[in-house]
Amino acid sequence: MSERAAAASSSVIRDLLRLVDRPGMLSLAGGLPAPELLPTERLRLAADAVLSRLATARRATQYGPSEGMGELREVLGVRLACEVADVVVTTGSQQAVDLVARALFDPGDVVVVESPTYLGSLQSFRSHGAEIVAVPGDAEGMRVDRLAALLDRGLRPRALYVVPNFANPTGATLPLDRRRTLVELSARYGFVVVEDDPYGELRWRGEHLPSLWDLAKGTEAAVASVGSASKILAPGLRTGWLRAPEWLAAAVVRLKQSADLHTSSLDQLLVANVLGDAAFMGAHVATIRSTYEARSRALVAALRSELGGVLDVDVPSGGMFVWARRRDGASTDPWLAAALDAGVAFVPGSAFAPGVAPSSGPPANALRMCHTTLCEPDLRFAVARLASAEHPPRG
Amino acid sequence: MSERAAAASSSVIRDLLRLVDRPGMLSLAGGLPAPELLPTERLRLAADAVLSRLATARRATQYGPSEGMGELREVLGVRLACEVADVVVTTGSQQAVDLVARALFDPGDVVVVESPTYLGSLQSFRSHGAEIVAVPGDAEGMRVDRLAALLDRGLRPRALYVVPNFANPTGATLPLDRRRTLVELSARYGFVVVEDDPYGELRWRGEHLPSLWDLAKGTEAAVASVGSASKILAPGLRTGWLRAPEWLAAAVVRLKQSADLHTSSLDQLLVANVLGDAAFMGAHVATIRSTYEARSRALVAALRSELGGVLDVDVPSGGMFVWARRRDGASTDPWLAAALDAGVAFVPGSAFAPGVAPSSGPPANALRMCHTTLCEPDLRFAVARLASAEHPPRG
Repeated sequence: MSERAAAASSSVIRDLLRLVDRPGMLSLAGGLPAPELLPTERLRLAADAVLSRLATARRATQYGPSEGMGELREVLGVRLACEVADVVVTTGSQQAVDLVARALFDPGDVVVVESPTYLGSLQSFRSHGAEIVAVPGDAEGMRVDRLAALLDRGLRPRALYVVPNFANPTGATLPLDRRRTLVELSARYGFVVVEDDPYGELRWRGEHLPSLWDLAKGTEAAVASVGSASKILAPGLRTGWLRAPEWLAAAVVRLKQSADLHTSSLDQLLVANVLGDAAFMGAHVATIRSTYEARSRALVAALRSELGGVLDVDVPSGGMFVWARRRDGASTDPWLAAALDAGVAFVPGSAFAPGVAPSSGPPANALRMCHTTLCEPDLRFAVARLASAEHPPRG
Repeated sequence: MSERAAAASSSVIRDLLRLVDRPGMLSLAGGLPAPELLPTERLRLAADAVLSRLATARRATQYGPSEGMGELREVLGVRLACEVADVVVTTGSQQAVDLVARALFDPGDVVVVESPTYLGSLQSFRSHGAEIVAVPGDAEGMRVDRLAALLDRGLRPRALYVVPNFANPTGATLPLDRRRTLVELSARYGFVVVEDDPYGELRWRGEHLPSLWDLAKGTEAAVASVGSASKILAPGLRTGWLRAPEWLAAAVVRLKQSADLHTSSLDQLLVANVLGDAAFMGAHVATIRSTYEARSRALVAALRSELGGVLDVDVPSGGMFVWARRRDGASTDPWLAAALDAGVAFVPGSAFAPGVAPSSGPPANALRMCHTTLCEPDLRFAVARLASAEHPPRG
């Protein structure tokens, strides 16, 4: 699909998805954390603690350092098991990705992404003039063998972008051997791996896999590793972080001065207060995990029961998304129009086409469903509506 | 001064200013609001109100719209006497300036600035590839006659950047006739005026002057007007705003999605809660104004009494800064080194050289002093130390 066709298609989809807010709509189209799991009371206590003591209250309301406040960087150092000096605080992980792109890319530089991948990052890469090369993915994330072949044929990217755990939109997780291969390729060809990991802590099945950041230690590979409080705490506080090689972290901090001087001091102190409360966080993340697991399983079970003949469903091991493909290969765009009429929304695969892939078509027969914001009964109603829109009942 | 020389000089100055945190140092070198005037208790009440009610607590912690939250945009519409639809919320006014630059500039585009001007904006403009053309200023801000002559000789800027009220670093305020001229020149030559006004409400003498935004109404001029809660409320909450022509506002909102998705929802609701409390804000801003007036007058009086023969002092009508120039034309750099030894810091004029001016030398004989963070007796001590560093006592 050309850039223009992709833009036109995504604007049609944007128009369709405006209907999501209609009363009675059951939306699988979002990407928001479950609102009832936002720890509002714990944050109220944190705000009271920070704003009641004069010393912290003044620091919370005054200008602060561009690289982030000491309290938060220390808490992150413990959580991420890294040096405090290695952590830069950003205004959400979106800013971390954007500043890395701003620091790295000159117009025409190539960035390799998986097809499909997170649109917010593609938008940032394009706005900094990067040329996007998409490598197809499968149920285990980016096909690193295809990447290796492209590099072998002369492709020389400046960077590679990957969401290693429970990716948006596919829910896929990159297995250990593919992670090792990416690190080796980064060392051999000199590109920066941008590891974007907002969902890593939301695993409910299988073993936690080492990050690309950890795998790159002691190698010549360059990894910029991006994290976020959005999925384990609260996205409204726009608090993310970056670990990167020293030269890149220094460039990001300089650019951050231009971008917004620093991230909200108040939000940083609140996030430090709550993230630093290991007992609370342990219980809180466990609750998010088990809630999402139950919802994901309910969604997958309903899809298999009601649409088993129509869809191949990828079963995720964590995160917020379920990805499925029509077996008949047909585009899900017309289905979306009928589904919205039936009172259910999803994001069609065509919305995720990177648009510039050398070797991958748009996943137009796919759909992304987010299970986080509906309770289990509503997830079953939503799938029933999806099925009725696929097989309209005879009149 | 070349870019490289400017960078080298500013790195020397950065090294010197690291000494500012030494115990006992009286610093006139900052640019921070007075910490004792940060309304921490009012913000604690706001946080409690927002985070105690489930509906607002969930909105404060959830993702929000890129253009900003309705509550804050409505409060700003009232404060700025404009349409709510005209207001975009940004992560501090620094982000507003940066996103306008990102939207406007292609490499090589010209932006006109006053010499000297705010370094944070120059840094942003440069990082987006803009070529900076500096027009000299005087005690009434940018010399618009010099600008008109440059335009007449063929200069075609994409934008012009101006801090119209109590500018950083000079404290100068652009009079009405110069404002009118800028609007006329924008309409005639088609450049965008970026009006950066963080200090406008901190006037303690003379009449409030109409903004360039208001003067441009009904004309062909294009004005992007940037404001901030940093100097009237709290910089730590990183909340700023932008009004701009529709095409530019739309481009900024698109780029803001890439930059940080949106500004902190919690901070927006807190700022809306406090800014929307007209009784509190009226009293609070009056307190800031009268405190800064007393400090500014104390600083100016001490400078005249102790250094009257050495300095020409510009007397500001508001804001945070006092600007002065050595009558002998000598650079203030050596004086800074001696002053730091004597226990007082200021920012030397050389730090503000835009570095690329066609018709203005660096204001190396100047110094910027900020009166906000010292009480009146300490301001007098600071000036006494300055004077002793200028005329070292004989041993």
